[in-house]
Amino acid sequence: MISLWKARGIIWKETPTLSSEPVPLIHSLGRTLAEDVKVAFDMPPFDRAAMDGYAVNATDTRCACSQSPVVLKVAGEIPAGTKGGKKLTEGCAMSIMTGAVLPANCDGIIKIEDAEEFIENGERKVRIFKEVKPGQDISFRGEDLKKGETILKKGRIVTPVAFAMLAYIGRKRVRVVRKPEVAIVATGDEIKKVGEKISAGEIYDSNSYGIYGQVLRAGGNPHLLGIARDNPGSLSRSVKRGLRYDILIMSGGVSVGKYDLVVNVFKESGVKMLFWKVAVKPGKPSFFGKKGEVVVFGLPGYPVSSYLNFENLVIFALSKMLGQPKPERLKVEASLERELKNSDDRDSFVRVKIVSEKDRYIAVPHPAQKSGVLRSVVESDGIVHLKRGEMRAKGEKVTVELFGTFGLLIS
Amino acid sequence: MISLWKARGIIWKETPTLSSEPVPLIHSLGRTLAEDVKVAFDMPPFDRAAMDGYAVNATDTRCACSQSPVVLKVAGEIPAGTKGGKKLTEGCAMSIMTGAVLPANCDGIIKIEDAEEFIENGERKVRIFKEVKPGQDISFRGEDLKKGETILKKGRIVTPVAFAMLAYIGRKRVRVVRKPEVAIVATGDEIKKVGEKISAGEIYDSNSYGIYGQVLRAGGNPHLLGIARDNPGSLSRSVKRGLRYDILIMSGGVSVGKYDLVVNVFKESGVKMLFWKVAVKPGKPSFFGKKGEVVVFGLPGYPVSSYLNFENLVIFALSKMLGQPKPERLKVEASLERELKNSDDRDSFVRVKIVSEKDRYIAVPHPAQKSGVLRSVVESDGIVHLKRGEMRAKGEKVTVELFGTFGLLIS
Repeated sequence: MISLWKARGIIWKETPTLSSEPVPLIHSLGRTLAEDVKVAFDMPPFDRAAMDGYAVNATDTRCACSQSPVVLKVAGEIPAGTKGGKKLTEGCAMSIMTGAVLPANCDGIIKIEDAEEFIENGERKVRIFKEVKPGQDISFRGEDLKKGETILKKGRIVTPVAFAMLAYIGRKRVRVVRKPEVAIVATGDEIKKVGEKISAGEIYDSNSYGIYGQVLRAGGNPHLLGIARDNPGSLSRSVKRGLRYDILIMSGGVSVGKYDLVVNVFKESGVKMLFWKVAVKPGKPSFFGKKGEVVVFGLPGYPVSSYLNFENLVIFALSKMLGQPKPERLKVEASLERELKNSDDRDSFVRVKIVSEKDRYIAVPHPAQKSGVLRSVVESDGIVHLKRGEMRAKGEKVTVELFGTFGLLIS
Repeated sequence: MISLWKARGIIWKETPTLSSEPVPLIHSLGRTLAEDVKVAFDMPPFDRAAMDGYAVNATDTRCACSQSPVVLKVAGEIPAGTKGGKKLTEGCAMSIMTGAVLPANCDGIIKIEDAEEFIENGERKVRIFKEVKPGQDISFRGEDLKKGETILKKGRIVTPVAFAMLAYIGRKRVRVVRKPEVAIVATGDEIKKVGEKISAGEIYDSNSYGIYGQVLRAGGNPHLLGIARDNPGSLSRSVKRGLRYDILIMSGGVSVGKYDLVVNVFKESGVKMLFWKVAVKPGKPSFFGKKGEVVVFGLPGYPVSSYLNFENLVIFALSKMLGQPKPERLKVEASLERELKNSDDRDSFVRVKIVSEKDRYIAVPHPAQKSGVLRSVVESDGIVHLKRGEMRAKGEKVTVELFGTFGLLIS
């Protein structure tokens, strides 16, 4: 039996990072960058108006105020999208639109709300009610991004804003890490597929669906290979098929009972065992092994154990394959609603619901903590980690690690 | 100019909830439930072994200990998946597998680690080293779920664990809310599509891509309708096309400059204006309107304003359409790295990065807070909300609302 931290270390060390592939921008969303993305041109690419208004030379507006506005001639207009080349002469302003190139000699913008245009003797003029400071309401070339700098780092997930950034800098294609292809197999003579008729003594396969969703959320490509039966032949066939993918995840059949053949079948199929038992509750009988570059997980059959072991262990293999940094779950502080005690010799993960209360969160432990009770995850938001023998008092501040938040934080 | 809270209230009130449709289980992941999901049978559906071991009658194991084990006859075995109907007789045990139906007269399981099987005079026998308590290591029928109860409520997103739950209770099909179809249009003569050649005075459309990702993350179906030019004809055509979807989002052209025609075109296209200006920084010029059941947003052209206004406003329309509860962003407490001051007359959203430091988070405000600086979002994790005129001291505890976390919490 090894610790969760040791188990994670082994997974991180043994799992390879996949190769990369170029994809068109539109297909990069949700993928992981395989390159440091460098900026090809300054952004903005030119000095531009940050507001709709009038381009002026600041000295021409000196002492302007609402009681005594400065009056300037309006010498033309600059809509966005027009090339540069215009020039301000003394005593003149130009009507300008947000995003438009500044004319030469302009060092400030008076926004439209602080000016008033009028016609005098057939000439366009503008009253300016506020003194303009040099640089006012201008976006300077390179103010956002400088040519050549790295703006998105290798290993970063293309979130919506990273996706916008790729477009912003004009990237037609981007190099991302290949998606891990993940085979999912349930095991057990008592397991039926949803849609099949169920008899006494049988239950539906739920682990495959949970894992399917977890793989997808983590950026992998899940494949449901169905249910293997509790006999060496059926198991061998499933393992053989599963070893054609990047990751094989089997649920069920990894505890010590004599019907638990999975671990033996792994060995006979050439999978080198790297660990089998992890000191966590729930989820102790968790197998990890490798054949060539394929990594193999055997998760316990109980739905809670399967879900949590994915969150606690398998996610590390997916992140490593994707070339991401080591995953960290988002943590919130919360006050414990009732005393918690872990009298077990393993680390325990207590499922809790987060309840918002004025300026704090309350962590409410789910009343059912057995590993067969799937509702304890359905009705919770995260876990409180108790070391073996640890006790936490009612009202004590605890750290709740939130489900499904790996990779959410940038830092 | 109305407050953000008032604006959200209007969106919530005016946006319709879409109709629902039944989908096969496998397509329900990520969708929103349109029905209260009721449990069709008790789970577990029968009393079953929670461990691999021996089914016993607790009274037969009285006073068993490692020094003086109790010896029972092994009267057979019960693999998982076999129908019930077996019966324990006094002085007998049966080998049983996790998940298998209990035999009659059995009221406890001794796990395999606490027993030792042997053969005596050709008969299978087992030494039991611990006294079994009634109910020990049994999962009782209905212990997890009771027939008829609601386990997943209408409006809930089908997360991986909810997906597993639907399989667990054998749901072949489930009723979900139709996905909102969202039209995305960028506007501006200076805007080019990624892949096109760019000239002086022009920039690439990034807002459409950001919004595309945000719509997808929020559970909608995004459609890129391209770029409309700053003239009534081009804008009208785009608005007309966009009004065929459930939501139309246009970015750019909603401020007060004379080239900003979008709001007028909305009106001429029959879109009833519900608000135009919101007291937030960045993102003040934000239009919301409605034509029939179609809701229409006009977001400012600046990439930061577009991103934040989606997070602050548009998300409410998507949640309402999907029949979800009012969205709440996940919040973490963090110590402010430097003083913050909002001298504006609008609420301000300061982009901050969260840095983990031992047992606390530090909120580091991004050095660039202009609404044209997209990197301020790319390099941040969330926002600190400052009311108008508000000041927060260095080191003060502030609440950081994390980007992209709407709908993450269950409660």
